[in-house]
Amino acid sequence: MNYSSTFIPTLREVPADAVIASHRLMFRAGMLRKLANGLFAYLPLGFRSFRKVERIIREEMDAIGALEIKPTVVVPGEIWKESGRWDAMGDEMLRAKNRLGGDFVISPTAEEAFTAIVRDELSSYRQLPLTLYQINTKYRDEIRPRYGVMRGREFVMKDAYSWNRDEESLDKVYRAMGGAYRRIFKRCGLTVISVKADSGAMGGSGSEEFMVESEIGDNTLILCKCCDYAANVEKAGCKPDFSPRPSPGFAGSAAAETPPYEKIDTPEVKTIEELCAFIKNSDGSSAGTREFIKTLIYRALNVEIDLSAAPGCAKLERKNPAGEAPQSKGAAVYPEAFFAVAIRGDLDVNEVKLAAALKAGEVGLASDSDVVRLTGAPVGFAGPVGLVSLPVILDHSVTGMSDAITGALAKDLHYRHVAYGRDFEGWMIEDLRTVKAGDRCPLCGGELYEKKGNELGHIFKLGYKYTRSMNVSYLDENGKTCIPTMGSYGIGLDRTLASVIEEHHDDSGIVWPVSLAPYHVIIIPVKYDGAAKAASDKLTAELERAGIEVLLDDRGERPGVKFNDADLLGIPWRVVIGDKGLSQSSPQVELKRRSEKENRMIALDKAAAELAGKIKEELAELDG
Amino acid sequence: MNYSSTFIPTLREVPADAVIASHRLMFRAGMLRKLANGLFAYLPLGFRSFRKVERIIREEMDAIGALEIKPTVVVPGEIWKESGRWDAMGDEMLRAKNRLGGDFVISPTAEEAFTAIVRDELSSYRQLPLTLYQINTKYRDEIRPRYGVMRGREFVMKDAYSWNRDEESLDKVYRAMGGAYRRIFKRCGLTVISVKADSGAMGGSGSEEFMVESEIGDNTLILCKCCDYAANVEKAGCKPDFSPRPSPGFAGSAAAETPPYEKIDTPEVKTIEELCAFIKNSDGSSAGTREFIKTLIYRALNVEIDLSAAPGCAKLERKNPAGEAPQSKGAAVYPEAFFAVAIRGDLDVNEVKLAAALKAGEVGLASDSDVVRLTGAPVGFAGPVGLVSLPVILDHSVTGMSDAITGALAKDLHYRHVAYGRDFEGWMIEDLRTVKAGDRCPLCGGELYEKKGNELGHIFKLGYKYTRSMNVSYLDENGKTCIPTMGSYGIGLDRTLASVIEEHHDDSGIVWPVSLAPYHVIIIPVKYDGAAKAASDKLTAELERAGIEVLLDDRGERPGVKFNDADLLGIPWRVVIGDKGLSQSSPQVELKRRSEKENRMIALDKAAAELAGKIKEELAELDG
Repeated sequence: MNYSSTFIPTLREVPADAVIASHRLMFRAGMLRKLANGLFAYLPLGFRSFRKVERIIREEMDAIGALEIKPTVVVPGEIWKESGRWDAMGDEMLRAKNRLGGDFVISPTAEEAFTAIVRDELSSYRQLPLTLYQINTKYRDEIRPRYGVMRGREFVMKDAYSWNRDEESLDKVYRAMGGAYRRIFKRCGLTVISVKADSGAMGGSGSEEFMVESEIGDNTLILCKCCDYAANVEKAGCKPDFSPRPSPGFAGSAAAETPPYEKIDTPEVKTIEELCAFIKNSDGSSAGTREFIKTLIYRALNVEIDLSAAPGCAKLERKNPAGEAPQSKGAAVYPEAFFAVAIRGDLDVNEVKLAAALKAGEVGLASDSDVVRLTGAPVGFAGPVGLVSLPVILDHSVTGMSDAITGALAKDLHYRHVAYGRDFEGWMIEDLRTVKAGDRCPLCGGELYEKKGNELGHIFKLGYKYTRSMNVSYLDENGKTCIPTMGSYGIGLDRTLASVIEEHHDDSGIVWPVSLAPYHVIIIPVKYDGAAKAASDKLTAELERAGIEVLLDDRGERPGVKFNDADLLGIPWRVVIGDKGLSQSSPQVELKRRSEKENRMIALDKAAAELAGKIKEELAELDG
Repeated sequence: MNYSSTFIPTLREVPADAVIASHRLMFRAGMLRKLANGLFAYLPLGFRSFRKVERIIREEMDAIGALEIKPTVVVPGEIWKESGRWDAMGDEMLRAKNRLGGDFVISPTAEEAFTAIVRDELSSYRQLPLTLYQINTKYRDEIRPRYGVMRGREFVMKDAYSWNRDEESLDKVYRAMGGAYRRIFKRCGLTVISVKADSGAMGGSGSEEFMVESEIGDNTLILCKCCDYAANVEKAGCKPDFSPRPSPGFAGSAAAETPPYEKIDTPEVKTIEELCAFIKNSDGSSAGTREFIKTLIYRALNVEIDLSAAPGCAKLERKNPAGEAPQSKGAAVYPEAFFAVAIRGDLDVNEVKLAAALKAGEVGLASDSDVVRLTGAPVGFAGPVGLVSLPVILDHSVTGMSDAITGALAKDLHYRHVAYGRDFEGWMIEDLRTVKAGDRCPLCGGELYEKKGNELGHIFKLGYKYTRSMNVSYLDENGKTCIPTMGSYGIGLDRTLASVIEEHHDDSGIVWPVSLAPYHVIIIPVKYDGAAKAASDKLTAELERAGIEVLLDDRGERPGVKFNDADLLGIPWRVVIGDKGLSQSSPQVELKRRSEKENRMIALDKAAAELAGKIKEELAELDG
């Protein structure tokens, strides 16, 4: 392709709102333009790379036996009402009314559409397992679209869905998908972090997110320096940590050295920092936040765990979530319950973990008046000692504390010299802390660190949510009606492409892995004229015959401009053809990899074969 | 691909609403399912063929230098307001409001989006000509979607747009597109009818529609039996036809034999049929409709042609369309004017032709009160003789009439023995008739006939409509600001695919051209077991290595069921492998073309090479 015949409007200036490299570079390299906030058009160069991502994904899906279909982008609102997500999706889902007043949805995802298609066709166990996918337009009305296609409103997603007879069959597809995703990202030249959900928190089902590190990532990841543990901070666990006074085995020995606990007046002390400054240790230093037991009162809704023997819960009754009379124990929940959560003063309670521990629909801090009612004191003076009006849940950190300071359940009063096991116990002991860099890995004990990450892909065992709500069934070998279980598997194409640029660029521009490069080679004649033109045209033709994609810069620009554009566009190999090299007894051209500083001269008549060989080798390595 | 590993839910029963072959067969062959009225999902088999149409179109677009881009499907309403089509598109355009109340459109076409992209990037004449295209989702909220994907609401269109410096450059792209379209349809195995718009009627610009014959076509086409003349009935012309009393050269000689015209009383006669029965010829027979001059009064809005010397128009004034004061003669029009149109009694006035002749925005029959005011008589008694209150426009047919009957501009009165040229003239003489089967070709005089047709593609010289309204400009060699002219070029993919099935099917199912077949070969082991299984697997592997797409029917169904499904699916080549053939001294398999009745035995070890050779030959022939 001749440069002058394509349409690559490069920019010298960076768009004002482009704060990340991929956004800047996709605009500067003429790959992308903005149509409206969160809506982008791929120009020819960008679309070439986009289609390569698409092809890699399609090949890997086909290779594991997933079958491609094409439902519509606009789908009837009815199926969303059936699944219950018409209301649940909120403003993120773009809706339209047709001329007859019917409700329609611009698909943000397609569990409903795929399930609607399959339920009408599924009759026999012989049709299972079945995995269908599409690579198609999605729309989510993001509140704050930004970072270019990294968080746009319209995007393309590969979304696959599987229907399986049982957990074992689902797990097989799930693992095949995981393998396909790893190959896809490898072929794209991407380093991904696999984040597996805590299976406990997900109710026994499996989930794996494929993340890339990103300064503007939506997710905070907790990673281990010593093993491959990776988790979203919302779900990350850690090894119990009993410092500052660690006493493995605890409690007797450490507590034995602690004086009996005593009340101290703490007038006008509101925050934990004021309390630290106020209380002096025996050596005269201020107390540290790690010496405090922070006790928070939580209100939880729709609690599933058994509270029949929990302190202060005798009067609670299970009800069905919709407010009907209890039918089965499994379905019924406690609509509202309160809990005290005690944690070391320097740590934060992770509400996702708390909700998972309680199997609660929702948890949040109790109101001030509930705190007064339950603890007999205003906010700021709760503590586990003598607290019997509600269940006390201890974070592991508290079980290592043998000389602590806590609220004394009365205004302006605290206790000191409080020891776990001697002065109080917990109704439940759980890992409830928000893990931080420096905590220890729950698998190997190694040091944990934090990264910001963006999710590129997600594979997820859905279970029966949609097959039940949308009435999907089949007949098994014995003619019995059965409900299949489902999996859902998505990858965002736009975000994947942008992430490749995030990982592969330098100050001069993009540095494409050869698998996604819009062209493999850029040929730059110093002047597109005479012998240089003839050599450029010939080399282009030879390379194209060998299946190599060539951009021939035939513009009448200065060499410096062409070199800068070649660097900006990020074409992996650059060949410069000038009269000087051509006038040698054996004509030479200059060869340079985009990723390297050095160039070298090679014989013109060997250039095509050598380049084609190298490119195919690199492609095979990425694909391998 | 093994049949049992894919998902082809064939149906024995035809969906109740499927009245055309492609709709029936796409459902029965498991290619397509309905999500909602006018919304369809392609299943794996259907999507394979769909992607082949897509690939052919993409290859032909790329071959003529069109560049593929990907704008969004959801586009901002703003650009539609700029072009003026926000209001003009009406209910057919699906609109949505986002969470901030902004207006968005689910693209029904993309002149606006492409123009918005190009205007920001276009700076120099060096960037022109520029042709961009997309293959992307479109949505049109059809009032009555039907016939499956032949007239669905969501569909995929290849739409290309070109920007050119001048008419010559535009014409070059336009002709290249025409060539590409012809190759696309040929490669798809489709017989298309090219319908060129009357260049007069389109105001000097060009337009070509690519139609296929269809019993349920939206368009009535007029075709010539002797040459390749083809036109939409709305615009079809025909050779002037002076029968029943043709007199080439006219008027004196024929009129000389006609007695002077005279009044006849025609009481209580309302319709032309009653008039025919009422008036007897000299030989006692009833008059035929061809002996009458039908005279209709039309009201025309926004008339461009000069009326300054037209009868009854002295008081008319040109105004700018928006009602502003006249600025340039070109822009100003007569907001309202009336015309009498005289045509032979057996013919109908084509209002599109009339509007084109008057360069009017709109034409329609005048109200009864306007007829009384302008003709001095109630509806039914207008005639050209003595009519001076408004311009009289004659269809060519009237100029051949030398002894006609007309209204006499008074209630219950007609004239007979009226002769054109002797008793009346026209202010304008035009071809205004709606052409019918049996009329004569305007090019060669051959007999015209009618067909119903569906439009698959349309190429169109748009001119400056969008570049002017949306402010697109570039600088020419001299630094002068110029506005580019545009072309627009569309093909509907879904409709193209369905049309191929319409043209290629029989009572048993689809008969795919090899270029679009979801698989090239179906291999049917009589029983997928033992030697037949081994031979089937081996032949499949050999064919796949040769690049041939194979569906291996490994199901445990009876051979009859498999044969019926193979016919229904329409796979071009069928290989049946049974123990009988395999047990020959030289093992044989049965080979059959879907399009032929006969089958023949060929040696198993030569089957792969022979089949691969034949298939590649057929593909090359379609592509050639």
